[in-house]
Amino acid sequence: MEAVVRTTSFQHYLDQLYARFLDVRDGDVANYIPELAHVDADAFGMALVTVDGHVYQAGDSRTPFSIQSISKAFTYGIALEDQGPARVAEKIDVEPSGEAFNSISLEPKTGRPRNPMINAGAIVATSLVNGEDAAARLERILAKFEHYAGRPLGINPAIYESERSTGHRNRAIAHLLRNYEILEGDPEEPLDAYFRQCAIEVTARDLALMGATLANDGVNPITAVRALPSPLVPNVLAVMATCGMYDYSGNWIFQVGMPAKSGVGGGVVAVLPGQFGLAVYSPRLDAKGNSVRGIAVCESVSRDFGMHMLRVTRTTTHSVVRNTYTLADVHSNLQRDRDSALALREHGHRALVLELTGELMFVAAEVISSTVADAMSGRDWLILDLARVMAVDNPGGALLTALMDELIDAGKIVVIAGSDGHFAFRQAVRVHFNGRDAAPVFDYADVDRALEYVEDRILESIGLPSHEQRQVHLDEQPLCKGLAADELDLFRSLLDEQSFRPGQVICAEGEAADFVYLLRHGRVRVSLTLDNKHNHRLGAYTAGWVFGESALFSDHNRSADIIADTNVSLYRLDPARLEQPKDARIAALKAKLFANLAELSLDRLVRANHEIRVLTK
Amino acid sequence: MEAVVRTTSFQHYLDQLYARFLDVRDGDVANYIPELAHVDADAFGMALVTVDGHVYQAGDSRTPFSIQSISKAFTYGIALEDQGPARVAEKIDVEPSGEAFNSISLEPKTGRPRNPMINAGAIVATSLVNGEDAAARLERILAKFEHYAGRPLGINPAIYESERSTGHRNRAIAHLLRNYEILEGDPEEPLDAYFRQCAIEVTARDLALMGATLANDGVNPITAVRALPSPLVPNVLAVMATCGMYDYSGNWIFQVGMPAKSGVGGGVVAVLPGQFGLAVYSPRLDAKGNSVRGIAVCESVSRDFGMHMLRVTRTTTHSVVRNTYTLADVHSNLQRDRDSALALREHGHRALVLELTGELMFVAAEVISSTVADAMSGRDWLILDLARVMAVDNPGGALLTALMDELIDAGKIVVIAGSDGHFAFRQAVRVHFNGRDAAPVFDYADVDRALEYVEDRILESIGLPSHEQRQVHLDEQPLCKGLAADELDLFRSLLDEQSFRPGQVICAEGEAADFVYLLRHGRVRVSLTLDNKHNHRLGAYTAGWVFGESALFSDHNRSADIIADTNVSLYRLDPARLEQPKDARIAALKAKLFANLAELSLDRLVRANHEIRVLTK
Repeated sequence: MEAVVRTTSFQHYLDQLYARFLDVRDGDVANYIPELAHVDADAFGMALVTVDGHVYQAGDSRTPFSIQSISKAFTYGIALEDQGPARVAEKIDVEPSGEAFNSISLEPKTGRPRNPMINAGAIVATSLVNGEDAAARLERILAKFEHYAGRPLGINPAIYESERSTGHRNRAIAHLLRNYEILEGDPEEPLDAYFRQCAIEVTARDLALMGATLANDGVNPITAVRALPSPLVPNVLAVMATCGMYDYSGNWIFQVGMPAKSGVGGGVVAVLPGQFGLAVYSPRLDAKGNSVRGIAVCESVSRDFGMHMLRVTRTTTHSVVRNTYTLADVHSNLQRDRDSALALREHGHRALVLELTGELMFVAAEVISSTVADAMSGRDWLILDLARVMAVDNPGGALLTALMDELIDAGKIVVIAGSDGHFAFRQAVRVHFNGRDAAPVFDYADVDRALEYVEDRILESIGLPSHEQRQVHLDEQPLCKGLAADELDLFRSLLDEQSFRPGQVICAEGEAADFVYLLRHGRVRVSLTLDNKHNHRLGAYTAGWVFGESALFSDHNRSADIIADTNVSLYRLDPARLEQPKDARIAALKAKLFANLAELSLDRLVRANHEIRVLTK
Repeated sequence: MEAVVRTTSFQHYLDQLYARFLDVRDGDVANYIPELAHVDADAFGMALVTVDGHVYQAGDSRTPFSIQSISKAFTYGIALEDQGPARVAEKIDVEPSGEAFNSISLEPKTGRPRNPMINAGAIVATSLVNGEDAAARLERILAKFEHYAGRPLGINPAIYESERSTGHRNRAIAHLLRNYEILEGDPEEPLDAYFRQCAIEVTARDLALMGATLANDGVNPITAVRALPSPLVPNVLAVMATCGMYDYSGNWIFQVGMPAKSGVGGGVVAVLPGQFGLAVYSPRLDAKGNSVRGIAVCESVSRDFGMHMLRVTRTTTHSVVRNTYTLADVHSNLQRDRDSALALREHGHRALVLELTGELMFVAAEVISSTVADAMSGRDWLILDLARVMAVDNPGGALLTALMDELIDAGKIVVIAGSDGHFAFRQAVRVHFNGRDAAPVFDYADVDRALEYVEDRILESIGLPSHEQRQVHLDEQPLCKGLAADELDLFRSLLDEQSFRPGQVICAEGEAADFVYLLRHGRVRVSLTLDNKHNHRLGAYTAGWVFGESALFSDHNRSADIIADTNVSLYRLDPARLEQPKDARIAALKAKLFANLAELSLDRLVRANHEIRVLTK
């Protein structure tokens, strides 16, 4: 049903839940172990920890209790890690038994336990943990549990004693398993480790964090320590999903929809993969051995917030394409001569840019493929900007590679920008195109350089000279548009020429703006030195551009460094030389220069406002 | 394990899978129904349909076969829709039986079938479909199946006859259910509908689309027809997950990790929620009654692409905040007088803007809350831009509401922009703040207006006059900066004054740019008429601004309409009147005007480039 949220904040909601179920007295404390009967039957605590490490809690969330059967899920994970899933599968099946938690449920012929969540399977799982003896195995189990919980854990000796001295049924199971040779050696040894493992003391907060670690792909979201290898996380969650709540498991997934595990100690932990771990402590159990209030709380959270692992969300397919534009609408920060700029406005539509975001999974990549398929007709270049992509998983990477392959086969050029963070994807693409005569271009860390690269290719393709070659003499400078020959000579007489070698600083950030420059040849970059001491390129100018014009206006300082990218030659103007009001010729020249400057600025402004509209559309 | 992708495209991959398993001859065709034994044992087809409706297929993907037990999942969904989950639960449990597909598995005392995927449960589900008789029920079932498959379906009469005449075990089950009064009335009636339902003919492509419909929250991704109410989708998927593959279900979720259902007809359908439906047709079955090649194909797809429903993805937590900036860095498109603009650069940091994207689920909203908690200290306004948000689910909406509540309690002002598409969320917030003296501001469809609103509040808070009140006389116009009294008089003599009423067009898009305007009082908007005939506001100017300056330069046309927003008074300049080279006073004036204009343009350009950097960061 659509979720009815009766809360002003999740913490407040948890507090309400706590109050709502505080007086519930249904069910009884487990008594099959004398010591368990001594706990406070009415203790009640809960905690929720998100995958970004935010902790919500209410009630006795820090009261220690014995983990009991909840340990089965985590120890099974260790067994999978130590022996590999194949070897573990020979000893423990993963089928729900449809029977109670203490059922023996062994496979008729082989004696293989039906799953690792029943005692028989759990004892076998404990025996599969690396370690030369019970003590070593237990040490490893404890250490792993501590990675999940993010703090040192201990064993309750009284509970252990009680389990050991009264665990006749488990002892019988262990010997039966030995008889089938599912257990090797002395069955008392894994049995003892199992008893101790069940007596490990945790709190609801610990359990919620342990669950959040599974929700977070096996990495503790607070300590950032990995507790379980990523590939095994789905396996552990799968067994919790099908067998975690004993013979209530089917109803649990139907109604709550979160892999979970309960223990007769009164704890229950539920995991919403990718979102959070939720844990409750309340010792009164129902007939199936599950915490009454534990089930009630988890059902409420799932129902009230509509949180169910099988609830469909389609984030992946939607938010993947952050923005789409062509080089006709947005240009690189390389300021080109007017002819080139006009040519790019005319031909820029031939290059499509896709700004991607989020996680590129199968369907996300599928959406990109369809988007591109529709949009690439009549275009020759595709730029994929991955700078904001969090991850490219293998299905997504494979489809993107396929897309690039098809485009390249069709004679198009594909450029990938901002892929530095995605080594595996880059590697896969490199391998895929290895030895082919055409491959995607991967050289650009930021999209600006990629745009510049494609702009150069477009200009090449229509036979315009590259900016490296251009010489723009004074009479061709846009700033001199419409000057008569004598005005040009006058202007030249006011200028001096300068040249710089690559890397030389022409203007430095912060210093007074004293000169205006006309770029005759070469290319300069405008760059900022950031707090991290790295240089950030804001843009670059090529021959024919005016820069530093703020010197024409009173008391400006340079807002950035201007540095020669190549060998550079400049015309330099000292604005003071235009300040001769008595001289009508200079006044007229000045008027024309400012008129041209105003027109150039206006063009650039119109252009910039257009880009802002495109980028914020 | 990390997925090993051996493919250049998913289609190519499917073709490879097809080739790899084509010669597999393991298993036997079901023969418990004579007619089933007559199918082509070696037929082999597969299809995958994504939630965005893309279809991949290979082999005999269009060969019809009888749906058999696969119908159980879809008919169960109809029963849930017609009777409600509670009533259905009285008649059918949802626990895995751990037993074979034809096991009777009734609850000892009540006779309630263990789950709807065994024959007993399925016959009961069929009996719970609305309809006064078997014919009506079947009609409804067929119609629903057609919504899933997106095309008319038919029943194979020979298969039906064969089932009916030899289904002794099912007939026994039906009468047993009647005995327990789980079935009411004549048990032959639902039994007959069940036999017919199992004989419905589908293809692998149909099944993949049916699965994609479940993956797509119950909506057929090709026809956009809803086949199952959204809240019931997780329930159907849950039962498929725990009971769909008979007594192989646990292993299936462990290894393949997709809710699935198989049928003795040789079909199997698997669903990856939010991603796709995958179906295989291959009649040779294993001992558990599952298609041998069907399992092999699904296992390969899951393994090779690492696709498992319990595999953690964290898209929701990452890509939710698309951009963050303050009003010191980005301003609204309302061009204000210089004092106000400078004040906003100084005080704009007090307003934080969050551009959100994707689907706002629980953890996504949690991320927003933490981001805001860190970022709001020393700020007074928060603007949330929801224009790019696809959906706000209830957990996310509840947390956002909580966040707003806390901020408003702390005396901050919250403005929500672009929330038109999220009616339920708006409604929930309205209800939550109903009757409170402070509530979030929801009035702005686009973020630009929201920015403008907050800018006004900031200026108010520092006691600057609102732009509505300002009169900017000629001597105060920025364009006249530094003009001597006589120059000002000269300039005034070149101008004429105009006024417009709200809505009057001052310049029209496309017409020649003939005059330059100085805005003395009021406000004008720059707007484009889009293809859809709607007007799009590009920006607006207030008193003190120059507009239409392109008239100063040869042959420009108006690139947009300029329309009076309020009562407006203007100074209008005909550029021709500055063209008197003989007149030194006018030449000097012109020089100063262009100098001022160039400086204004430069300021605006620097500002625009800064915004571009902020918006593309």
